[in-house]
Amino acid sequence: MWTNGYIAVDWGTTNRRGYRINSTGECEGEFEDGKGITGVPSGGFPAAVAEIRERLGDLPLMMAGMVGSNRGWVEAPYVPCPAGPQVLARHLFPIEGERAAIVPGLSFTDETRADVMRGEEVQLFGAVAAGLVPPDCSVCHPGTHNKWVLLERGEVKRFRTVMTGEMFAMLQERSILSQWMDGEVEPGAAFQEGVRRGLSDDALTAELFGVRAGVLLGRLQGEDVPAFTSGLLIGADVATGLRHAHYAGEVVVMGRPELTRLYAAALKETGRNSREIDGEQAFLAGIGEIVRQIT
Amino acid sequence: MWTNGYIAVDWGTTNRRGYRINSTGECEGEFEDGKGITGVPSGGFPAAVAEIRERLGDLPLMMAGMVGSNRGWVEAPYVPCPAGPQVLARHLFPIEGERAAIVPGLSFTDETRADVMRGEEVQLFGAVAAGLVPPDCSVCHPGTHNKWVLLERGEVKRFRTVMTGEMFAMLQERSILSQWMDGEVEPGAAFQEGVRRGLSDDALTAELFGVRAGVLLGRLQGEDVPAFTSGLLIGADVATGLRHAHYAGEVVVMGRPELTRLYAAALKETGRNSREIDGEQAFLAGIGEIVRQIT
Repeated sequence: MWTNGYIAVDWGTTNRRGYRINSTGECEGEFEDGKGITGVPSGGFPAAVAEIRERLGDLPLMMAGMVGSNRGWVEAPYVPCPAGPQVLARHLFPIEGERAAIVPGLSFTDETRADVMRGEEVQLFGAVAAGLVPPDCSVCHPGTHNKWVLLERGEVKRFRTVMTGEMFAMLQERSILSQWMDGEVEPGAAFQEGVRRGLSDDALTAELFGVRAGVLLGRLQGEDVPAFTSGLLIGADVATGLRHAHYAGEVVVMGRPELTRLYAAALKETGRNSREIDGEQAFLAGIGEIVRQIT
Repeated sequence: MWTNGYIAVDWGTTNRRGYRINSTGECEGEFEDGKGITGVPSGGFPAAVAEIRERLGDLPLMMAGMVGSNRGWVEAPYVPCPAGPQVLARHLFPIEGERAAIVPGLSFTDETRADVMRGEEVQLFGAVAAGLVPPDCSVCHPGTHNKWVLLERGEVKRFRTVMTGEMFAMLQERSILSQWMDGEVEPGAAFQEGVRRGLSDDALTAELFGVRAGVLLGRLQGEDVPAFTSGLLIGADVATGLRHAHYAGEVVVMGRPELTRLYAAALKETGRNSREIDGEQAFLAGIGEIVRQIT
């Protein structure tokens, strides 16, 4: 049913993006809106999907992301690592009567910890399939929940999640720093200074209070707080990620360009080179690869 | 004006406590309510103070805490460390026409960082004055913002703040963990396991996501999330605090008993002994010591 074209949907917590893919694999139309899974009322997914088809055409749907979580449409069980696109394709979760399927997320467990991802796996496999990244590499995938991923032979071997984006949003909305947290984050001097502090061993909860004290005592300008705080969080994130990354060389940073450039700047502070990859392009390649596996 | 008795007020962000102290220094009456500084409307402090006198008597007021911050009644400038009770008494901030004064907070700066406290300094000097702690010791003072303090010859030499309590509240109110964050925290097995993880080098933002993944994959019971998360935050806090503490021996843990016992349990995990001190008793001794300095 997929060979005459389909719709690819990247359906996250707060946003969704839909793409109409034609029979030769080209993207012919797309849209993005704020109807993430938290914006869909209980029982509202069939209507939300009908809306997508009204916009992009009456085609089968291949979906990925939080739509397959316990807070989404239906829960598509996690596939354990190591896993590649073939395994994902074998575990697609079909939705009866809807000409639709959900790509499952990945889980990782070892003796000491557990981890999960939903959505990033499609981009990772897509980037390999499209030749954007080598099949063996370390990937950093920033977002609400940043993922540090080890790819081996095109499979996700292990990964570690850091809730940097969510923490930044929490600090913006309701914290002793909120009053200063509006404004854009640029990878300038305040950001780099934050990264250096974040790379140190002290707890983020200590460094974050230091931001407030720094402003009160005139050490830090209020207008520099968003960039400095972003640097702190990303610095601590990078320190943790590199501790778990197994490749010594370049790190691939994949995702939204406004985030990947911040991580690239923080990695540079540690002496690591990085290669930035646009997540949207990788997503389409990943859905294409999964469809190829089942047709 | 203080020798015929006075009212001591510990006026924080969300709560206030008032105590009527008689001419021989004994506490004859007290109250506590939720009218912290954020509960007082603009221009409302004279009325809020009249309320206190209606309850406890028409006496002069000695106040400490966030009432002296830029969000309080009037801003009493920070006194830089090192400082003892004599310096605080010299820098009391009188409020014209109100028979009232505010005890200033303390600031700390060195080449690398800045820090501030308001309210804890009174408890610290009170504990020394009352002989509850030696004049040279390391103190941990948990609360919304935990303070690690080095006391030397009865003065605060340096300190470091960790926003553990505020972070716990943020995670309760609005985070991927919120759904599991109700419930009491006891220093049991889940708490201790959290402490061990929190003492490790990885970023809190990584460990916190691991809590969610642990529940989703059946590694952690939802009911254990509050205690485990509290342990994580306190473990990271203790690791930072001990890195900055200069005494090898016992740590004094001062504050509300339900918090000091958690920090005492976390310190034990690192092999440190601790001595718990009730912050309320120390506060009254501290205000008494400051009044003694000015009469």
